[in-house]
Order: sequence, then C-alpha cells, then structure tokens
Amino acid sequence: MQKLNDLQTPYLAVDLEIFHRNLKIMQSVRPGSSLRPHVKAFKSTHIAGILKQSGYSGFCCATIKELEGLAANGLGNDLLLANETLNASRLRSLVDHGAQVIVAVDSTETIDAAKDGGIRNVLIDVNVGLPRCGCDLKEVETLSAYARRNGLNILGVMGYEGHLMFTSKRSDRKEGVTKAMQVLQEAHSITGGDIISAGGTGTFDLNELATEIQAGSFLFMDTRYSAIDLPFEESLTIVSTIISIEKNQKRAVCDAGVKSFATDYGKPKLRDGVIEFCSDEHSTILPTEPRSQLEFQVGDVIHLRVPHVDPTIAKHPKLVCFQEGYVHGDWKVDLRGW
Amino acid sequence: MQKLNDLQTPYLAVDLEIFHRNLKIMQSVRPGSSLRPHVKAFKSTHIAGILKQSGYSGFCCATIKELEGLAANGLGNDLLLANETLNASRLRSLVDHGAQVIVAVDSTETIDAAKDGGIRNVLIDVNVGLPRCGCDLKEVETLSAYARRNGLNILGVMGYEGHLMFTSKRSDRKEGVTKAMQVLQEAHSITGGDIISAGGTGTFDLNELATEIQAGSFLFMDTRYSAIDLPFEESLTIVSTIISIEKNQKRAVCDAGVKSFATDYGKPKLRDGVIEFCSDEHSTILPTEPRSQLEFQVGDVIHLRVPHVDPTIAKHPKLVCFQEGYVHGDWKVDLRGW
Repeated sequence: MQKLNDLQTPYLAVDLEIFHRNLKIMQSVRPGSSLRPHVKAFKSTHIAGILKQSGYSGFCCATIKELEGLAANGLGNDLLLANETLNASRLRSLVDHGAQVIVAVDSTETIDAAKDGGIRNVLIDVNVGLPRCGCDLKEVETLSAYARRNGLNILGVMGYEGHLMFTSKRSDRKEGVTKAMQVLQEAHSITGGDIISAGGTGTFDLNELATEIQAGSFLFMDTRYSAIDLPFEESLTIVSTIISIEKNQKRAVCDAGVKSFATDYGKPKLRDGVIEFCSDEHSTILPTEPRSQLEFQVGDVIHLRVPHVDPTIAKHPKLVCFQEGYVHGDWKVDLRGW
Repeated sequence: MQKLNDLQTPYLAVDLEIFHRNLKIMQSVRPGSSLRPHVKAFKSTHIAGILKQSGYSGFCCATIKELEGLAANGLGNDLLLANETLNASRLRSLVDHGAQVIVAVDSTETIDAAKDGGIRNVLIDVNVGLPRCGCDLKEVETLSAYARRNGLNILGVMGYEGHLMFTSKRSDRKEGVTKAMQVLQEAHSITGGDIISAGGTGTFDLNELATEIQAGSFLFMDTRYSAIDLPFEESLTIVSTIISIEKNQKRAVCDAGVKSFATDYGKPKLRDGVIEFCSDEHSTILPTEPRSQLEFQVGDVIHLRVPHVDPTIAKHPKLVCFQEGYVHGDWKVDLRGW
C-alpha cells in the first residue's frame, strides 16, 4: 500500500475515518429524507453514491451539471436544483429519461423557464434573510398562482438561512434560525406542499421547521465551520511540499497556492507556521510567534487546513482517500464546471 | 454563427481583437527569444500554439503538468520550469523523448532532485526581493559549485521581481526593478551562462537586464494589472446571467461566484453595479452610488471584469472566443491540475 506522504503534491486528502464519523453523526440526527445532501460541496458522483448507501436518496444541487451527472449515474431519483436558472431546458432530457427533478423558482421568468423546460415540480424560493436569491414573502402568493396557472406543481418552499451559518454562539444562531423560519413557515402556509427545504451544516440540528436540511460541508468541514460549535471534524486537508526555505529559516515556501485552494474565507492554516501570502502555486510560511525560526526541511510534506471547502474541492480533479497514513484510492471530482 | 450572449453561463469569454492587439504590442517590444511566455497564466496548449506562430518558441511553466502538456503537443523545444520541484523525475521521460528542459533550483535538495530526474540544464533561482522562492545572493556561489559537481550545466540565473508587478507609478516600478536586477546581475556574474530570466507583465518594458521576460497575463489582463499604466487591455471577461432580482430593484444576483473566478485580488467589477458579496455560484450586486436602483432584468447577460486572471482561467475547462459579439470557437484549458 502506498503511503500518503509519498504522493506528488499538491492534492487534497480525505481522512476516511473522520469522513465516516462525520457521516454517522449526521445520520444519527438527520437520517433518510430529513437530509438532502448538497452536492455542490463535493461535486462527486462517487461520494453521492456513498451517501445513497447511507440512506440519502434525495440530492440538492447548485448547477445543472451536477444534476446531469447524478442522473447519468443512477442517482436521479429525487433531485432538487436549489438555485434559480433560465436554462431549465437542459433538464428536459433528464426528466424524459425518468429523473425526478424539482427546481427552485423566485420570479415569473424562472417559472417560465421551468415550464418551457418540461419541469413539472417546483419549490417557491423565499428570501429568509440572506441577501441573495429568493422572493419576498409578499410575492409568494402571486408567484404561486402564476406557477399553478402555468401547470406547475408546487411541492413546497425553500429558504436558505445562509446568513446564520457561521454565527458563533449557538443560542444566537438558534434565535436567528427561528426568526428566519417564521418567514418560511408563513410562505409555506400560502403554498402548501410536503417540502420545506432549508438549512445547512451550521444549522443542521437547530432548524426545526425544515423537512429537509441542505447540508454538504459537514462531510469535510473547514476552518470557518470549525470555528463554531459543531460536532463534525475536518476530514479534508491540502497536502503540500516544502520546496524552498530561506537560509535563516525565517521563511519557507510550499507548493500549494490559490490554484489549490479558495481564499474567500481566508488563508489555509497549518500547525507549525502561519501563511504570510499566497501566489498561484506557492504559499510563503512564517514562524508562528513567539518562535522566530521554522523547523522545516526542503522536501517536508505538510497538511494545510482548508479555509472554504466547496470552492477548494472544485479546483481538484480528485480527492485522495487515506486511513492511518496509507492511500485507499481516489474519489473523482467529476461534476466540476457548469 | 452563434451570438456570444446566447450561450449558457457562467463562462469565460476572450475578445479576439483585444487578445491579438495585446500580443502585437508585446511582439513589438519583446519579440522572439526576448519573451518566454508564462503558460501558468492560460494553461492551454492551443494558446501556446498561437504564441509559437507569433515567434515565441520558449515557454515558462509553473507546474510539471504544464511541461508535460506542451511537450506532448510538439511545443517542447525550450521549456523552463520556473519553479522549485522535488519531483523532477517526472521530467525524465520528456527529456528522453527529446524535449529541452531547464529547471530552476535554489537548494541542494532541488539540485539533487534535478540530477536524479535526468535533468541536465538548470538556472540558479535567486531571490531579488519577492519573499518566495530563490536563494540568497550569498548562496549562489556554493550552489553553483554544487550543481556543477553534480554534472549539471548552469545556463544562467532566474530572479522574479514579483513584488514590483503592481507598483502603480512607473518611475517607482522602474527604480525597484533596477535595484532588484542589480542583485540578479551580481548572481549572474558568478554563474555565467546565456540566460537571465526575470520579469512579468508589469515590468515587461522596464527590465533591461533580463535576456527573457516571463510574462503571460498581458494576453488577457485583469482589474489589478489595469490599475497600472500598461499598454495592454482586458480581453477576458466572466460572462454571467442575472438570475434573481429583489422586488425593489435594490439587489440583483448573477450566476457567477467563487467557483467561476478567484477573489485573492478582490471581487470582479462590472459596469452597472457593484458586487456586495460572492457565494459559490452567485454574486450579489448592488446599485453603484448615487443610484439607488438597478436596471437589470432577470435573464440579462452581463460581463464581469476579472480580478486575477491566472487562477480564474484555472477554474474553467475552456475559453470561449468571440469577435464583434459572435462566437469563434473554444480554446481548451487543457493544462489544469498538477
């Protein structure tokens, strides 16, 4: 068996033990249809397959490419495009081939697109506080009527409380979720339907209204999610090699940069140093104070903690799985792009 | 012919007219061997082919994957890995099949790796002020001797003045480059050799020492490079669709987010609004003050200006080329990954 640290860097590594522990914790709180795993986090039909074997057969997607990939791999039983699209016509062939597809809509334009694309089932997407997609509560009635007049079934509502995912105090998070879900409950009282789709990793056990939680990051976690009190641990790291060291040992450079990880939530973290700045294919590392020198050697393999899991995984063609330091194969990240 | 704005978004679009104008400007200042185009900027053998037809047959790479791809496509005449590597053994088969490969080294470890990988030609990489790779000037003599003892030919030196690329005042930039190149000149007086490899888009016409400039971004440009006084224009945009608008027209959401562009140099810019925040697959847009409302409609196609070209292109499988609003085909971004 190949040792993890013998592989050529940079790459992403998944600690299988932690990954499966995270999955078990989620299963104990949100089994079966109470979770709709968000494929945008991992963009991999292989991982979706593992989730299906763990009792999750409904999936949440951010792109049409994700839906197409799942359907092509026999995972098209219950797919939600949790995003607005004007390109719903691309979904027609999936529906014609038996995939069950639900699309989020928040405007007459997206309703028209859904109808023209042969979609039958929609959720009314409602803004519950995150300044992004979702209609105003006041529009729910008109849009529902418009969707029904156009022959669409409204299966319920969706409302993502994304503005609360990283609220550090659990009680504040809980309070925020309760308030956000009052809006969604009102919307649901207008639309009816079996589905109230909401939530994410940060609110998976706090959102009591949602019939299904849209979480994906819990499988891997990252430094931002780790900063709040969640029971999940980081299973994903960026593996990198020290390729250059200043003579005085005050700086080292590793071979992972902004082409290996996303920096929208900050720079990666590491145990024995702090990242000063990142280039395309490099990160420059300083000693962590109060130390004034690094203890790396050229060739050392280091593991960087991921700042934001979703866009980091989307930069890699595969994830390397390991257990106790040995490689157990790759998971292809096959749903990248659009 | 297909209209550019009829394609499904998000994607990257290249304005061919501007692209070729940028290339012509560079050819007039740095023809032939005086430029070693940096493939890390575009990661595309097709674009490398265009450059070859324009008189550039030597290429600069940041990853071994880039060298492998160029060599496999008949572009392996004169390749420089302008980066430190411990994995030079991957280059052996390229060399065995006739590719001409030069590798940058800045330590005994990277020299050992080059030798063990069957590499014959190296440049001593010298730190000229950017706190990243490159040895100290004081180490040049020892490392050169070590490389020669190990049977390597030293073709010269490399020293990237990356810390000066965005210095806004041209005279300050010029002064900085002159100072940085004094270090490199001293290093070169120790090593000898025909090559002094340095520079980038920001210093392409200021660096008088370098025998070859390592520039790539000039073909596309981005908002950061546009902020300084360069003769190149932005040929690349992120094409996106408005998918949701707040009822009061105070916010709109487009379908391009941090999976479509890198944010290490800030958020993308657009003509009729300002980006408030970016999610994985969305950006939320506010009106530009003093206006208080946006004038978008759901379905409108917008072009976002790219904040940092290299890691943005690395997120996309292809670039869509257009001229006067009509699509002229795709360029595959085939050298992504490592």
